[in-house]
Amino acid sequence: MKKLAIGVDIGGINTAFGLVDENGDLYAESVISTKKYPYLDDYPAYVDDLCQAMRALADSLSFDYELTGIGIGAPNANYHKGTVETPANLWRFREDETDTDPSRRIFRLAADISQRFGGVKTLITNDANAATIGEMIYGNARGMRDFIMITLGTGLGSGFVANGEMIYGHDGFAGEFGHVIVERNGRECGCGRRGCLETYVSATGIKRTAFEMMARMSAPSKLRGIAYDDFDASMISAAAEQGDPVALETFRFTGEMLGRALADVVTVTSPEAIFLFGGLSKAGKLIFEPTQWYMEENMCFVFKNKVKLLPSGIQGKNAAILGASALIWQQECK
Amino acid sequence: MKKLAIGVDIGGINTAFGLVDENGDLYAESVISTKKYPYLDDYPAYVDDLCQAMRALADSLSFDYELTGIGIGAPNANYHKGTVETPANLWRFREDETDTDPSRRIFRLAADISQRFGGVKTLITNDANAATIGEMIYGNARGMRDFIMITLGTGLGSGFVANGEMIYGHDGFAGEFGHVIVERNGRECGCGRRGCLETYVSATGIKRTAFEMMARMSAPSKLRGIAYDDFDASMISAAAEQGDPVALETFRFTGEMLGRALADVVTVTSPEAIFLFGGLSKAGKLIFEPTQWYMEENMCFVFKNKVKLLPSGIQGKNAAILGASALIWQQECK
Repeated sequence: MKKLAIGVDIGGINTAFGLVDENGDLYAESVISTKKYPYLDDYPAYVDDLCQAMRALADSLSFDYELTGIGIGAPNANYHKGTVETPANLWRFREDETDTDPSRRIFRLAADISQRFGGVKTLITNDANAATIGEMIYGNARGMRDFIMITLGTGLGSGFVANGEMIYGHDGFAGEFGHVIVERNGRECGCGRRGCLETYVSATGIKRTAFEMMARMSAPSKLRGIAYDDFDASMISAAAEQGDPVALETFRFTGEMLGRALADVVTVTSPEAIFLFGGLSKAGKLIFEPTQWYMEENMCFVFKNKVKLLPSGIQGKNAAILGASALIWQQECK
Repeated sequence: MKKLAIGVDIGGINTAFGLVDENGDLYAESVISTKKYPYLDDYPAYVDDLCQAMRALADSLSFDYELTGIGIGAPNANYHKGTVETPANLWRFREDETDTDPSRRIFRLAADISQRFGGVKTLITNDANAATIGEMIYGNARGMRDFIMITLGTGLGSGFVANGEMIYGHDGFAGEFGHVIVERNGRECGCGRRGCLETYVSATGIKRTAFEMMARMSAPSKLRGIAYDDFDASMISAAAEQGDPVALETFRFTGEMLGRALADVVTVTSPEAIFLFGGLSKAGKLIFEPTQWYMEENMCFVFKNKVKLLPSGIQGKNAAILGASALIWQQECK
């Protein structure tokens, strides 16, 4: 009988899910709102409604199949424990709540979902790790035993694979490469520190750089007509493609910061390839060319000209669902 | 029948080797000169003489045992290929040689030794990785699946273990953490770049720092009476233990550089513990205290107060032989 897994991608706005086979073919997909359940005491209703919607989707297929498992990608997910721990934008305390003990916001999501699905195997990891496993099972990393995935969204996520296995680390939170410090006393980061890589290399980071370049350079630029609050990273690509000097310098600098950081981390895991995934990576050679150049320029001789910098092979709207479902197939292969 | 492995530690001066059981007990050890075979064309004689000496040692035991394998720790060793590749201080070209094609200095050491020992399993890795496996099999990392080993000698070596396995990387050279850049345009490094971690954190690094501190500070210090060429890192520990302010500041700064770098790398593999091994680590709290403090101070909140900083459990004169022999036991356990 055909085997299918459910892949679930939990974002702050929506939760998308779909039925996927081991080749990465998506048979059906659906979505519920996450935003409708903003508070801690909404969590049980969220789980109930999500499970009901998944059940309806699972029942909608016209052929028989075996449901192998449910794979979930979510912020602050702990693979070892099956939990989502104190996520910034999910199931918050109410503004008037007095008991704000953070341990109350450790959600046993994998167990809670599995229980409502007759005990089916349910695995959870953060969205970047899910994308990494998706790349390994369905994408351009098929057959690779050592690679790095960099996911460029609002922030910078990452996943490290060594010896053919995802590195989750002792606590289940490994792969927070967006929070290596690349500039002492640099830009303020949401994590409370300064100079983290994601304050330079992400949709938010490149926007900050564009504003820094407008201050530093005196060249005219289309970007000078747009206020910070109206600004969005895709405007920089559009301007750069028309030769806008501020936009071009913004990409060069972004590639320099990313290339340097990659040259450093290569010394740790010595990967076969590094994949760039998500928003900023869609700028193509605008981001790949300077990143590649600065990566090689800063590389220790041992690793020079060995590491491929490649686009993700699972880019597209279903990447997050695919990645989450791949958690199940990776376990199956063992 | 008892099983023993030979552990071999190849240094620029001497090659030490010994017979070790799976508990890390050393039954016999011996040494030959490495320095006596400085040139490329001395290599075959080196291998012959080493094998003859190992055979003599192996025959010297008064009880019967099974020789399970030979594990070798050597500079520039490639685990996957069993080679030592263009090592700086071993089997060099003669000064008057005209054909200096670097590919001639790729030595198939594992195969060459195995062949002279009746095909016994022979594995090779660099000295830091060998120490890491030694820590995992015989030392304080027993039972840990995710940890980092930092070996402090003339330079800074490292080994990363994730999911219970050594990370060798795609090319077999992973774990060159001494060559992450911690200071842009910083100190000149032997690798040809600037600002590598090992130019600050190593016996050579701390000596350089002592001289920088003598220039920067005006406090009197015993160290001011010693010329650079007569200086050795142990003098800094001796002075620091007597409260010498320049020596104390030198240790604080060294711990700051190491602590910062460790806080960054923890984001990648999220280890249970980090072990410090070798020369500088013997300074005890002089190095552990500032390293621990700056590591926590710079740690992303996700990992704060989770990662133990510990002394190696295989410290001592036989650590290199033990570590090399552990390569064999690690394979046996699989």
